[in-house]
Formats: sequence, structure tokens, C-alpha cells
Amino acid sequence: MNTNDEVTLQTIEEAARTLSGHAIRTPVETCETLDLLAGRRLFFKCENFQKSGAFKFRGAFNAVSRLVRSSEPTQRELHVVGDSSGNYACGLALAAQHCGVSAHVVMPNNAPECKKQIVLSYGATLIQRERRQDFPQTIKQVQDLTGAVYISGSQNPDVISGQGTMGLELLQQVPDLDAVIMPVGGGGMLAGVSMAIKSICPDVRVYGAEPEVANQATLSLQNAERFVYSYVPRSIADGVVAGIGPVTWTYIRDNVDDIFTVTEDEIKNAMRLVSERMKLVVEPSGVVGVAAALSDSFKARAGGCKNVAVILSGGNVDLQKLPELLQM
Amino acid sequence: MNTNDEVTLQTIEEAARTLSGHAIRTPVETCETLDLLAGRRLFFKCENFQKSGAFKFRGAFNAVSRLVRSSEPTQRELHVVGDSSGNYACGLALAAQHCGVSAHVVMPNNAPECKKQIVLSYGATLIQRERRQDFPQTIKQVQDLTGAVYISGSQNPDVISGQGTMGLELLQQVPDLDAVIMPVGGGGMLAGVSMAIKSICPDVRVYGAEPEVANQATLSLQNAERFVYSYVPRSIADGVVAGIGPVTWTYIRDNVDDIFTVTEDEIKNAMRLVSERMKLVVEPSGVVGVAAALSDSFKARAGGCKNVAVILSGGNVDLQKLPELLQM
Ligand SMILES: Cc1ncc(COP(=O)(O)O)c(C=O)c1O
Ligand SMILES: Cc1ncc(COP(=O)(O)O)c(C=O)c1O
Repeated sequence: MNTNDEVTLQTIEEAARTLSGHAIRTPVETCETLDLLAGRRLFFKCENFQKSGAFKFRGAFNAVSRLVRSSEPTQRELHVVGDSSGNYACGLALAAQHCGVSAHVVMPNNAPECKKQIVLSYGATLIQRERRQDFPQTIKQVQDLTGAVYISGSQNPDVISGQGTMGLELLQQVPDLDAVIMPVGGGGMLAGVSMAIKSICPDVRVYGAEPEVANQATLSLQNAERFVYSYVPRSIADGVVAGIGPVTWTYIRDNVDDIFTVTEDEIKNAMRLVSERMKLVVEPSGVVGVAAALSDSFKARAGGCKNVAVILSGGNVDLQKLPELLQM
Repeated sequence: MNTNDEVTLQTIEEAARTLSGHAIRTPVETCETLDLLAGRRLFFKCENFQKSGAFKFRGAFNAVSRLVRSSEPTQRELHVVGDSSGNYACGLALAAQHCGVSAHVVMPNNAPECKKQIVLSYGATLIQRERRQDFPQTIKQVQDLTGAVYISGSQNPDVISGQGTMGLELLQQVPDLDAVIMPVGGGGMLAGVSMAIKSICPDVRVYGAEPEVANQATLSLQNAERFVYSYVPRSIADGVVAGIGPVTWTYIRDNVDDIFTVTEDEIKNAMRLVSERMKLVVEPSGVVGVAAALSDSFKARAGGCKNVAVILSGGNVDLQKLPELLQM
């Protein structure tokens, strides 16, 4: 696959051109109540409005359309395969549909029902596995069967460049930006956005946020060495339990200022505030950055930041489960 | 009270100046999935983002600030009182807080919990009554006690003019507008918006939408005479069960092209679509216009309309009740 093997400002700007007219340039919303609670101005980038319901479409579309452009036109049918907690599966399925490519996605059994339905609605093949350890073997089987190209949802450089386009947009959308905070799982978003921001405005601080029970980015930065738990942590933020991967690690190590951890109750509280006050449907993973921006540790460690962009990274939540998810 | 006793384009334009910097000029969103289902382009005016969570703040703020401006500056303390299914109570409470006025609101016992909490959070006095027949008596008691000025949530001309500002905004926000559809209860929104639209663009069609079980606007237009049930109908759309009032009736009779009715299941389906596809938190009353725009009768009776604005009138819903509300 003719992929860029690096992520630079240039590959991100290229991705922005590729996404133009395909991905949504999501709006930035504000909320007085949340500003009061945070003690600063917050600017919410609404990736819950993104196609497929989360930012993952950006990276997926960039990678799939580059793949298509670099393929022999004679080639019969292109197949792609990806593994995902759910949102990348949705994004990849839609990107593949747009590009006339067949998508296969491997997801955990216990992923939110709506994410499975979205994948199917875009015509992709959904393969469910109980244990994450079985994903590589399943991907291999799909590849043997179809010749599918594997595109990692966070470690593929084209995917990371696609996510970086949110950084470019934020610099245009938010006046006098001091900092950006966003959830981190595999780290594709954080790696891409931090590269975009630091390349253009090195003084803008870039922060990650993760559940306390899945504090793998925190431990990695603390020890200056990538750390991943040997098990998959359990959090209501199902999209961000994975640890940083090897590709994203070096970018995050070089470009990210700090990582904040939040409790499960802080995530629930953020979800409640965003639903009740901002009238936005968000998923638990999508508000991890909000929870961090409202936390005491953020007040202590990011004191000087007046204007903070927060990425609401996704909105694919089972509405039937909402009461349960909001229960403290 | 120095109220305008008429609603005209001029009183609506005046209201727009009064609201400027106080009410939110709510955005207009689009959704490809809903366009496909409707067979036309829909433009959703997001009044669920309005201050207090519904459009009612517009009318309330216009009326309260006119009252304040027309009062003797020596007068000690101003009180206002209103009755409401809930959202007007929220809007009046916030408008009063902004203007330094004391608000008292009378609401049904069984109003959504969040609407009661919003009223209290804005510092208003909340009075709950089980039977709507007891509202006038309660209002009278508040007036005797405090000298409060009664401001009807749908029949006061300043309130109607305030709601009309949505019509002015829509004409600016939606290119080549063919029609506007919105929920109708007491009729303040429909009377105000239809006056604004028909005064400027008489060819744009203006439609109301109401639950089948509370089809009082439909019967009124059909018989060319205002009709109101002697009981309060029960619908999940708790904000639109009231019938058109005497003031709004004449405006609606003169300016509204048609009224569409929707079933309870159509309302639930619209709520599900707007939550899942648009990632917006809306309340059942808020999506009655959406349900109508997707209905077969709309396809039959509003065939030629290509670009249709739909007002999402409110977003104050008990999240804990969402599964129950969405159950078909
Ligand atoms: C909603 C949401 N937020 C954040 C993330 C984390 O993204 P990344 O893996 O690029 O760090 C994911 C990943 O699935 C997600 O679905
Ligand atoms: C959400 C919502 N939509 C529509 C309406 C109907 O407005 P009107 O009484 O002006 O017809 C109401 C009234 O409470 C409401 O709360």
C-alpha cells in the first residue's frame, strides 16, 4: 500500500484536501454553564456530528482514498480490513462505501449495539470476537480469504494524518487558542492533532485525557517509555481503553504536553452536562476531554489557559442504555 | 402593562432588536439521512440550543424586558406570573432573572422533572397544580399576594412577536426556502413565525404540526372556527397538548396554509432519528414538526416544497425517561 510512512504538517494538509467535500468540517460550540464550571472558555469541537458519528471517519477516509488512488485501475475489487472498539469500524465502513471498496471489520462482542448497526447499515462485513487476543488471527483469515489490506485505526500514518485535520480546523475556528484537550486510546487523534498544532503554533498546549482505569498514556509519558496493560481495562468509555501504539507513541512523546486522567464518575458527570446543558448526544469516550477540562487537576496543571478547545470525539451511544450510563 | 396589542412585522423586528445579544441566534443543521427519508431538503432550526432549552425564552424575554422598560423606575420590585406545561416556565424564569424581575410559574404536577429543576435553578417560584382548571385561581392568588403581572405564554402579543423572530432568522439562514413547519400548541410560535414569513415572503408556505390525539388546530382550521377540547389530551409531546388560544387563532387562520397531525409512534420515531442521526437531544414536543415532515400526508399535501425548514422547538427531556419515551 502506497502509504506515507510519516506524519508531518504536509501529510495533514494533504489529508485536509482529500477530506474536503467528504468529511464534515464540524462546528465549534460553546456553553456558558460549562465555562463557569471550568473557570475558562471552552470550545467544543463537535465530532459527534461527523459522518459515521465520530472523528474516525476522517482517518479512515484519508487512508482508503489514498489506497484507491494508488491501486492499479485494472484491479478487480479492493478489500480493506480493520479492527476496532466500534467507531473506527463505523468510519472505515462508510469510507469504504464512499470509495467503492469492500470493508471487513473485527469488533468485540460487547461493543455498543448501535456501533454494530451502523457498520451493517454501511454494507460492511461485521465479524465479532469475544477476546481481543483473537483479533490478529481473524484479520489474517480475512486477508487470506479476500486479499484485504489491513488499515490500523490508530497506527496507520494516513489515518493519523486524517485525524490531524481537526487540529488545522481548530486553529482556524477558535480565536486565541491556548490549549487543546482530547481523549486518547490508541493515540491516532492525539498524535495527528498534536503534530498539526505544534507545527503551526508551538505555544498552544496539547493535552490528552484518559480514564483512570486505563491510564496507559499517563504511565507512558511518566516513564518516557510506552506502556500498555497486558489486559484490556474496563471503562464506560469503551473507545479509549486501548493503549498507545508504537507509531503514535513517538509523536505523542515529542508533541504532547500532559495527560489527564478522569474517574468513571467524572465521565458520567461530563456526559450528563453535555446532554442536559448543550443538548448534544455524546458517548462516554467522547466526553473524556470534557471531564478532564472540568477536573481539579486540570485547574492545577493548566492554570494559565484561557481558551481551551475540547474535542467531543463521538456520539455513538445506545440510547436505551443512557440511564444506566448516567447512573453514578 | 404597556404591551403591543397587535403582532405585526414591525413588532417582530422590534423584538429581534430586543433579543439581540440576549437570545441565541440558533444554528440551522442539515442531515442527509433525514433528507432521504423526507424526499426533500430539510433545514433544522435548533431551538433546543436556545437559552433555557426551548424557543420560549424568546417570547418571554421580549415581554419581560418591554414590561421593565415601561415601568416606573421608582417602582420597588416587579413580579411576573405565568402558567405553562414547562418550557415557557423555564423561559420566563430565565428572562425574569436576566431582567431583575421576580418570576412565579404555575405548572402541572406531572411535568418533566428537568423542566421543574430548570425553573428552580433560575431562582423562580414554582407552584405545582394537579388540574389545569385550577391554574387561573392560582394565578389570581399570586397576583393578589405580589401584584405580579400575568404574561401568557402563547397569547401575549409581545410573546408572539418574540417567537416571530425565528421566522426572520429562517429567511436569512435558509436559501430558497419553500416552506416552514413547526409544532403548534397554544399557537404563539405558529402565529409569530407565520406573521414574519408571510409579511416578507408571502409565497413561502407555513405549516403547523400537532399530535393526532390533540388535533385542535386541525379541527379549528377545518371548521374555520377555533376549537379546543374540554379536557387536556394526553400525548408524549407534553408541550403541545393545549389548544390554540383566542389571540393566536386569528393570526393562524389568516396566515397558516395547513396543519399536519402525527401519531405518537411517529413522534417517537422522529425523536429516535434526530437523536441517533443528528446527535441532538430533543424532547417529544420538539420533534413534532420533524414527524410531520416525514409523514405520508406531508408528501401528499406539500409535494412541491423542495427546501423545508423544520423548527426543533425544545430539548428539555428527562434523560432517565428516554428509553421509555422511545419505546414503540
Ligand atoms: C469516541 C472516541 N474517542 C476517542 C477515541 C480514541 O482515539 P485514538 O484511538 O485515535 O486515540 C476513540 C477510538 O475508538 C473513540 O471511538
Ligand atoms: C418544545 C415545545 N414546542 C412547541 C410548543 C408549542 O408552542 P406554542 O404554545 O407557542 O404553540 C411548546 C409549548 O410549550 C413547547 O414547549
